[in-house]
This record gives sequence, C-alpha cells and structure tokens, in this order.
Amino acid sequence: MDERSALGLIADRLEPAGDDAAIVDGLVVTIDMLHESTDFPVGTTRYTAGWRAVGASLSDVAAMGAEPTAAVAVYGAPTFDGAEITAFVDGARDVCAAVDGAYVGGDLDEHEEFTVATAAVGRTDDPVLRSGASPGDIVCVTGTLGRSAAALGLFETGEYERANDLFRFEPRVGAGRALAPYASAMMDSSDGLARSLHQLAEASDVGFAVESPLPIDEALEEVTAPEERQEVAVSFGEDFELVCTIPPENLDAAREASPTRLTSIGRVTADGEITLDGEPLADRGFTHGESA
Amino acid sequence: MDERSALGLIADRLEPAGDDAAIVDGLVVTIDMLHESTDFPVGTTRYTAGWRAVGASLSDVAAMGAEPTAAVAVYGAPTFDGAEITAFVDGARDVCAAVDGAYVGGDLDEHEEFTVATAAVGRTDDPVLRSGASPGDIVCVTGTLGRSAAALGLFETGEYERANDLFRFEPRVGAGRALAPYASAMMDSSDGLARSLHQLAEASDVGFAVESPLPIDEALEEVTAPEERQEVAVSFGEDFELVCTIPPENLDAAREASPTRLTSIGRVTADGEITLDGEPLADRGFTHGESA
Repeated sequence: MDERSALGLIADRLEPAGDDAAIVDGLVVTIDMLHESTDFPVGTTRYTAGWRAVGASLSDVAAMGAEPTAAVAVYGAPTFDGAEITAFVDGARDVCAAVDGAYVGGDLDEHEEFTVATAAVGRTDDPVLRSGASPGDIVCVTGTLGRSAAALGLFETGEYERANDLFRFEPRVGAGRALAPYASAMMDSSDGLARSLHQLAEASDVGFAVESPLPIDEALEEVTAPEERQEVAVSFGEDFELVCTIPPENLDAAREASPTRLTSIGRVTADGEITLDGEPLADRGFTHGESA
Repeated sequence: MDERSALGLIADRLEPAGDDAAIVDGLVVTIDMLHESTDFPVGTTRYTAGWRAVGASLSDVAAMGAEPTAAVAVYGAPTFDGAEITAFVDGARDVCAAVDGAYVGGDLDEHEEFTVATAAVGRTDDPVLRSGASPGDIVCVTGTLGRSAAALGLFETGEYERANDLFRFEPRVGAGRALAPYASAMMDSSDGLARSLHQLAEASDVGFAVESPLPIDEALEEVTAPEERQEVAVSFGEDFELVCTIPPENLDAAREASPTRLTSIGRVTADGEITLDGEPLADRGFTHGESA
C-alpha cells in the first residue's frame, strides 16, 4: 500500500483527520517524523536538522492559520554527541523564536538511523481548512517554489553552507495568521504544489487552472536546466510555503496583510480539472520513500 | 555521552525541561519515540504498539496531574500494510478512549525500522512537578511494578497473547488527576522505580527510605525466580505507574480519591540517601539502548 492510500485509511477511521493539523477545542496539534535517509542529505548540519524538523511542524500550524504555542522534539540517533545535540536544540529553538513560538523541550532515543520526531501545538478560533475553496477564488502561493530542490542540488555538489542556508526555511506563521481572515482554504506545500492542488481540489470538490510564470526560487537556476525548472518547482515540494485560495474581493487586502510575498497563480474552477497553462497537471510530488 | 547526560544538556538549554511534560500556559505537551529494536519485542501486535506508544505519552500527561486533550502519532514502517495500520490506529484510539482522551490523527513515514512517535497535549491549571517533595512526605506508587518485565518474559517464551495483554497498560490519568490536589511531587515510573526515586530526589533535593514489601505484579512470578523479583520490579521500569509523594495528612484522602490502588512504600527523608530496606538503592533502571 502506498503512503497516500494508507493515509486515506487513517483518515477513514478518524473523523478530524485530513488537514495539516488536527483541531480540538481551538487547539491545533501536529506531529511529524523526519529521518536521515529521506530527509537529511549528507552535509545537513544538526542545527539545520533541528530547525527544519521543528519548522515542518510549525508549518502545519501556520497552514491552519493558527498561532504556535509550543513545539517539542525527540532526537533519535545511534550515539549522543554533546555538540550535535546542542546544535540541534539551538536550531529547534531558533526556528521557534523566528515565529514567536516556544521550543519547550524534548526527549532522546537511541536509534540506529538519525530520526527526529517533532510536534507543535497552536491556537486558533477559526482554522482555515482545505475544504473551503469555491470556484472563482484566486489561488495564491507565498514565497518561492523550488528552494528545497535547490538545496538538495547543492548538497549533492558539496556546497554545504549554501545548501544548509536554503534548507532552513521560515515557517509561514505570520503569513498564515495574516491570510486566515481572507483565505477560503489553505495548506502547506510540503508535498509539492501539484500535490497540494490535488489535495485542496479533493477536499473542496473543485478544480484549479494555474498559469505560469510561477514564483520559482532563483537558487534553482544554479542546479537545474532551464527547461526543467518549472517541473521541479511544481513537483519537488518540501518548500513549506502556503498554498491558499482567496475570494477575489479579498485579494488586495490579503496581499497587503501578508508579511510574505503572495503570488496569484490561477483560479479555482468548477470542473474538477487541475491544469497548468491549460495542460493537465498530474498528481505527482514528493512522497517520502519515492523519488521526486 | 549516555542518554541521561545528554538529557541534562537539553535541560540546561531549556528552562522548562526536566518534568514528564513541558508546561506552557496551562497546556502540557509531551512527545515520545518508540521503535522495534528496543520497545516492541517479537510478537508485539500493531494494536498493542499503537496502544502502548500513545499510552506512553498519555502517561506523561497523567504524571503532571493533567487532563489529556488530544494525542497524535506518526507510524513509521518499511511498508504500509492496511491491516497493520488499521490495528495500530485502533490501539491508539482505544487507549485514548480508556482515559477519555481523543486520538485525533497522525501521519505516516516510510522508515527502515518500525518506529512510532507520539505526542499528547493536556490541560491543568496546577501541574504536579517533580520538585515538590518534602521530608516527612509519604512516597506512594499506583498499581503494581514489574508488569512490563513480566510481559517481556512472556514474549521471550512465545506466549504472545498474554504478553500483549500485559503490555497494554492503562495510563494512570484518573489517578493522576485524583492525586494532583494531594501530591507534593509526581512522575511516572517509565524508567523504573529506582530511577524515578533518584530523579524525584534530585529535583526535590531530598532522599527516600523505601521499605518492602513493594506491590509486585503477580505475573512476574511466572517469569522470574523469587529472589530476583524485587530487583526486577524496582529496576526494569516501563510500567507507567505513578510515583508520588504525599504529605501524611493528605494520605487518607488521596487513597480514597485514587481510582487505582495506591501503595505507600516509604518516606521522604532529608539526608539525600535513597534506600530500600536500609540498603542503598542504586540509580539503575531501564535506559533505551542499555540492558535492564
């Protein structure tokens, strides 16, 4: 069974599942697991790992339009090296500080493969779900796409310092909160824009007509041939930007409110099709354990 | 660096660390990671794994005297088998239902080793910390000690059904909430009674004089020689009982309030020594990756 079918199985057994985070009484709760073979390329520092792992959970909180309250992490590794653990905790703490959240603690686990689990808790009285998009809404994305793909290319060529810089993304908490009053649906792009659109389409029972140019990260120019850039930006994922839909009358206000650049990339349609420049956009993306 | 020194390093960098769960604005948050090589013996069903993993986080909430609000889990495995995932989710859901908590969702991760991360969130306005014990208080333990050690023995002899039954503990949420108004300090016994006493002693700057007989689980009789039982019950851990200290004037009321049997096993002392029947009780216990 592939990961997506299996996730469907979980969702079927749990009513509240199916968004970036679970919601209980105004609390949002999310948990993630990242590990060396699929998430931390050779050259990833422990500081970056701590930042990125906790950032992934904060991104889920952001995608609900919620305010992060606290994050925790478990650091699993074959050996406990003081400098590595300190760097990891510093990264975890710094990414929380960057979004006014609190990194409040964690645990250790002796594990054959470097494996990190993170959880974050947030608050919102009015979560933005994946299911609220309506035909005619504008689909928007924060920041740029392809940044993590660029980082991976730089890890492969040994440019570790720049790769680590690119790998430490800022969770879009400020944007998520600013967009919440205006957005009809929202999620993060951790599985890639293409897959995010398919998931929003399924949850909202709509389609999407997306038009280039897309906001592609400049760093992708260094590691990808021109003709491949858009494909990589759309399908690679792991960027942790927000993908949201906004009724046209809210667009100007949303753009003004967002602390992060918000790019309109198309429209919500009624026909259920998902297209990029008029061509079908396949439901492909980064799934852990599959290639991008 | 061993796990305990490394945890000290984390605590040094994070003010709120050092209890069973972190506390932020009346919320308690905890995260745990369990995996096949150290936590799930051959014969452990996925249902038991889901129950036990989520139960471990609920136990941390219980140890703060808090009410669990929600729990989440990540299921990491080499392959996603529908029946196994369903069983895992059912176990997670059932342990939450057993303590009036809500299992609200989770995620999947393709991982070479079966690895589970769980987080739980709870609420309390008046958390019970490890640091409140005073000389003269009575030290008590809920339930029995040695149940998980007995389960492990039964897994080794292939008595999987009984082993699984013993491995599915009831998190002491009801007892934790009932004892909270009376207890001066509390934690769970997940690392074993001996280690719990040493941790409480360090946090409260006290000692403990513990006297046998201890409430040893009957099941331990089947797998352990009589002369070893007390040692195993004291040091093996993984039982997820509550260890607490209670001022003598509160003891009767605490016992009456607790839905789980509460056994008085000794007294808090001022001398910093930790003794069992007058002999020093070493700070030994189950640490992941070490032998019991």
